[in-house]
Amino acid sequence: MGITKFMTPEIIFGTHSLSQVGESMLRLGAKKVFVVSDPGVVNASWVEKAIHYLKECKLDYYLWSDTTPNPKDYEVEVGVKAYRESGCNAVVGIGGGSAIDAAKSIALLGTNEGTIHQYEGVDHVARPLPPMVMVPTTAGAGSEVSQFSIIVDSKRKVKMTIISKSLIPDIAIIDPQTLMTKDARLTANTGMDALTHAIESYISLAATPLTEVYSLQAIRLIAKYLRPSVASQHNREAKEAMAMASLQAGIAFSNAILGAVHAMSHQLGGFLDLPHGEVNAILLPYVLEFNMISSPEKYKNIAAAFGENVNGLSLTDAAQLAIKAVKDLASDLDIPDSLSNLGLQEEQLDFLSHNAVQDACMVTNPRDMSATDVKMLFHKVLRCEF
Amino acid sequence: MGITKFMTPEIIFGTHSLSQVGESMLRLGAKKVFVVSDPGVVNASWVEKAIHYLKECKLDYYLWSDTTPNPKDYEVEVGVKAYRESGCNAVVGIGGGSAIDAAKSIALLGTNEGTIHQYEGVDHVARPLPPMVMVPTTAGAGSEVSQFSIIVDSKRKVKMTIISKSLIPDIAIIDPQTLMTKDARLTANTGMDALTHAIESYISLAATPLTEVYSLQAIRLIAKYLRPSVASQHNREAKEAMAMASLQAGIAFSNAILGAVHAMSHQLGGFLDLPHGEVNAILLPYVLEFNMISSPEKYKNIAAAFGENVNGLSLTDAAQLAIKAVKDLASDLDIPDSLSNLGLQEEQLDFLSHNAVQDACMVTNPRDMSATDVKMLFHKVLRCEF
Repeated sequence: MGITKFMTPEIIFGTHSLSQVGESMLRLGAKKVFVVSDPGVVNASWVEKAIHYLKECKLDYYLWSDTTPNPKDYEVEVGVKAYRESGCNAVVGIGGGSAIDAAKSIALLGTNEGTIHQYEGVDHVARPLPPMVMVPTTAGAGSEVSQFSIIVDSKRKVKMTIISKSLIPDIAIIDPQTLMTKDARLTANTGMDALTHAIESYISLAATPLTEVYSLQAIRLIAKYLRPSVASQHNREAKEAMAMASLQAGIAFSNAILGAVHAMSHQLGGFLDLPHGEVNAILLPYVLEFNMISSPEKYKNIAAAFGENVNGLSLTDAAQLAIKAVKDLASDLDIPDSLSNLGLQEEQLDFLSHNAVQDACMVTNPRDMSATDVKMLFHKVLRCEF
Repeated sequence: MGITKFMTPEIIFGTHSLSQVGESMLRLGAKKVFVVSDPGVVNASWVEKAIHYLKECKLDYYLWSDTTPNPKDYEVEVGVKAYRESGCNAVVGIGGGSAIDAAKSIALLGTNEGTIHQYEGVDHVARPLPPMVMVPTTAGAGSEVSQFSIIVDSKRKVKMTIISKSLIPDIAIIDPQTLMTKDARLTANTGMDALTHAIESYISLAATPLTEVYSLQAIRLIAKYLRPSVASQHNREAKEAMAMASLQAGIAFSNAILGAVHAMSHQLGGFLDLPHGEVNAILLPYVLEFNMISSPEKYKNIAAAFGENVNGLSLTDAAQLAIKAVKDLASDLDIPDSLSNLGLQEEQLDFLSHNAVQDACMVTNPRDMSATDVKMLFHKVLRCEF
């Protein structure tokens, strides 16, 4: 093994932990807090509650709740302008991965010059960011602990992957209660996103013993709790377990990076503005089939983590059960098994495949993948040829 | 589950990672680095190598290598005086748990007033510490990632447990090569210390899903690699695995705290200056027997992590295998099974037991323990009545 690095924010986890947001910001030296969210989270009253806790700590604030799914470069620009004019010196993001990714990119440009496009790729951030506290309200994205921010380049219609240690928030506050206002579809999609993080980080070329245990534990939790979490908004045990699974998968992928599923889904998100979790869920079994020869032992461990009985099976048969388990779960959650209904066209595949192999997440995919391989896979997913 | 917190330093792990010490200090804003170590580590040339990497980054330094096992309050005082006079603005600790604990307490008093005694207990640190990079050269203590510093109060002859998030270093650099200059006895004792961290953190009342996976994985690695690591100074695979085990156990206990083994061994270390790892190893099976009714399911998991066959056994029988596995390992490593040869006297037990129940580590022991319980256990260990 070469030299590996591992980093997480300070983590506060548990029911009612949202109440720590004021104290956390205070501890980081905040005076006026720029609160980034989206209309759905505002409606569910989580922003109001967070602001209450900021006020309790005598912190001033400015609310900017204009983020959308798959946040765009021009939205970040508007957000940065608002941040600079607001006189804030700290950032809180409350929401799903989109709101938190937007919050992180706004924080980045709060202290660094230029536009967000200049920071695409790995390690281009020069100056420290303002203090950041992130509060996820879905169990999936993991952005609250990651060194990633994913922003759509609206001209090129691609998602830019921005990776820097500076993007790791100072404090992540994970309150499972926030999951109880999400509908079944969003719960399923975000849960499958967490599963994709867990699996891709586990088989990543950059996986380490510090990330692998979290990847596997996240898979175990998702295998057991995602179905009941989708089944009921009120199942507290399932929400808590899914919040933990998303957190563990987040720590794992932030440090081990991801693979071809994300490299491909970033293109679809950027080009067609499709929901990230659902697209990941559709692509996952196809990519897993392609990647299997790279790491059958790990596939066997994934199958075992899903609770599949791998005793007495050949390595290949045991490994296949990992793919079967993923497909079974997706099917139970009514995830589509093809991209064709989502507006993807055959003639777009060259463009998308070309961009996918350039995505930062492709570097750690455990099997080499050319643009032709990617196109072949897109093709299969489009025609549902599993 | 209530609200739980989790925190680790940035971690750099791997063969030759010592080479990162200069760059790491530079990144943290160091100008002149106070290097804390001990004569053994200096002799093994690790300090010289570290200083070489500091110089490469044009960093000035001051070497203070006067730490001893079970570091004393008066040593810390001398160290702090040297730190203040040296004009340093950052601290590197290179060595076993003692050198690193001393380095952390020196850093604490580098920016905070008074003597180290004022900081005994939880969360008494007011001001941020200077930047700290810690480089462990044994696989056991875990101090490089923990929020603990253990210093002997020489008047009271007790070990003070100082706990604060501020004591978590900024960066931990773990280079398994440094383990290859350690003799078999030190390797065995420090390895058993890591095992004690893994087990006590796993059954701790403050264990969380984020710590439990690391505790269990550390146990698996120690079960497999501690014997071969003790057997050969040159077994690179075993050294790397033990370095990882110690790291994972360290992250676990820093966040889940420990239990009665440490509460008791701190007294013996403070009173008789006995080697910490060896005392932990002797106490561990006795305390495990006492604690078993608190968490037999977890004991069963520990037994399974040791590779014991728990299939078809009653819960109690399976749980007992955890204690058997610990005793087998200790026996293979020639750990004594009684404290009697280490100078402990019957008439000292009242004093030691009284202090043990006041130790910060006792709070998270999974079974309530009175001074009478502790005395009874000390008694057993003294007479080898297992």
